[in-house]
Amino acid sequence: MKIAFAGERGAFAELAAAQYFGPAHSLAPVPEFEDVFVAVERGRAAQGIIPIENSLTGSIHQNYDLLLEGDLSITGEIFLRVSHYLIANHGVKPHNVMRVYSHPQGLAQCKKFLRKMPQAERVPVSNTAAAVRKIKDCRLLDAAAIASLQAAIDYDMNVLAKNIEDNKANITRFLILSKKAAPLPRRSAGLKTSVVFSLKNMPGALFKGLSVFALRDVDLLKIESRPVHGKPFEYLFYLDFAGGSGEERQANALNHLREITVFCRVLGSYERGKLVHPEYKKR
Amino acid sequence: MKIAFAGERGAFAELAAAQYFGPAHSLAPVPEFEDVFVAVERGRAAQGIIPIENSLTGSIHQNYDLLLEGDLSITGEIFLRVSHYLIANHGVKPHNVMRVYSHPQGLAQCKKFLRKMPQAERVPVSNTAAAVRKIKDCRLLDAAAIASLQAAIDYDMNVLAKNIEDNKANITRFLILSKKAAPLPRRSAGLKTSVVFSLKNMPGALFKGLSVFALRDVDLLKIESRPVHGKPFEYLFYLDFAGGSGEERQANALNHLREITVFCRVLGSYERGKLVHPEYKKR
Repeated sequence: MKIAFAGERGAFAELAAAQYFGPAHSLAPVPEFEDVFVAVERGRAAQGIIPIENSLTGSIHQNYDLLLEGDLSITGEIFLRVSHYLIANHGVKPHNVMRVYSHPQGLAQCKKFLRKMPQAERVPVSNTAAAVRKIKDCRLLDAAAIASLQAAIDYDMNVLAKNIEDNKANITRFLILSKKAAPLPRRSAGLKTSVVFSLKNMPGALFKGLSVFALRDVDLLKIESRPVHGKPFEYLFYLDFAGGSGEERQANALNHLREITVFCRVLGSYERGKLVHPEYKKR
Repeated sequence: MKIAFAGERGAFAELAAAQYFGPAHSLAPVPEFEDVFVAVERGRAAQGIIPIENSLTGSIHQNYDLLLEGDLSITGEIFLRVSHYLIANHGVKPHNVMRVYSHPQGLAQCKKFLRKMPQAERVPVSNTAAAVRKIKDCRLLDAAAIASLQAAIDYDMNVLAKNIEDNKANITRFLILSKKAAPLPRRSAGLKTSVVFSLKNMPGALFKGLSVFALRDVDLLKIESRPVHGKPFEYLFYLDFAGGSGEERQANALNHLREITVFCRVLGSYERGKLVHPEYKKR
């Protein structure tokens, strides 16, 4: 079974996928988040994995938009502890570094560390592992990359500094995507449901939208808003709540929600994810 | 009076500021959003202007985080219709363009247009006007920039295509920042208040937080969530609601809100902004 992820070997999504799916699955890198959706939709991959939020930098809004554009289901999640490493070619010293390459999220998560290197220009690239490959392939001796330790191992590069993230509580939540909804236990303490909706234009609309859950003691876990294209300053809401969409209280809440929404789609019910630490390996 | 904005001459923030403040004020460009906050806090500028959300790409989360970190007040807002132009050196034809430079927001807002130029690599830079300056200064004949018409005029460059944004409903909302809260009419139909808070960890917390407004018929205009650093998957909420914080219903709602929040700060009450179109000028 092939699992699509965006980026290259050594990307955090690969580390998360390796732990979620285990060694029996093969991991297929694709260039962009969009390509993960396309690979699963067209059957080139059985499932996909995308980051959806980070505990320091917040939601990855592009992936919220892609969830809405496509029609894949969320069938699982996993939380990965993210540690960043400053990586360079062998022989390069910290004071040689005039440019630091990484994904914008990697640069944002190491902002305080980078302030201690004011001489170094921050250069955004498409993914963290690509940053390492770039400084290796071009043999850059005045540059470094921020990436996972796995990327340093894969490309046989030197680690200049480890665990350079601003805050050790740095965790990325990944979603698992499939064409079909996950088969679920009828009732489980550990389920979670994600839904997206837009509200009718009426006073107190959002309050009414949330009340359908509160009135039934269904816990809200997360709310995220995104703009509706073509309707300036109207919003779509993405909500995660406790329980599966097939459970009685949750199903009633969803029916109630549909009374007051213009549009409402359940993105998936799935087992709540575990927090894992990356496992690095020589390969 | 000096007004700080991030970017360079010809930036959208400058076009918005010119219309908000009028010709009597001088506009002072600074490199980054952060520098706008610093310039106002240290008194180097009387006021600042920052983009806070775009109708296509959503909130500019970095600026939400900066509002919280500093202690400036929001004293006004303005909505600017954003039109993007594909700009190149004179003599460059569309099929010559192998790279397109712009701010990531500019690239994101012209995604569909860029799909029609698959040969062109998208290169993110720090601001749209800088993209134009770069291709001019380096005399790049295989590159173009996405920026405002004003930037094309300022740098005397050629326009290859106009109004290339994906959706004509492309509007950016800018906030005006000052050290002191705005003096407000005691009661006005056109006021708006922005507040940020984090909720006590209790069931239905967000529902209770919104109920303080709904119970008093105070309209919610926007909700945005951001992660709390160091507390993975706890959130700060930024809320805009109708009315000024000194009005009776709104003041009562805020007192009620403080009963159920760990932290609560009014970022400002201000007159609701107007929608303006940019005015381009030769200078």
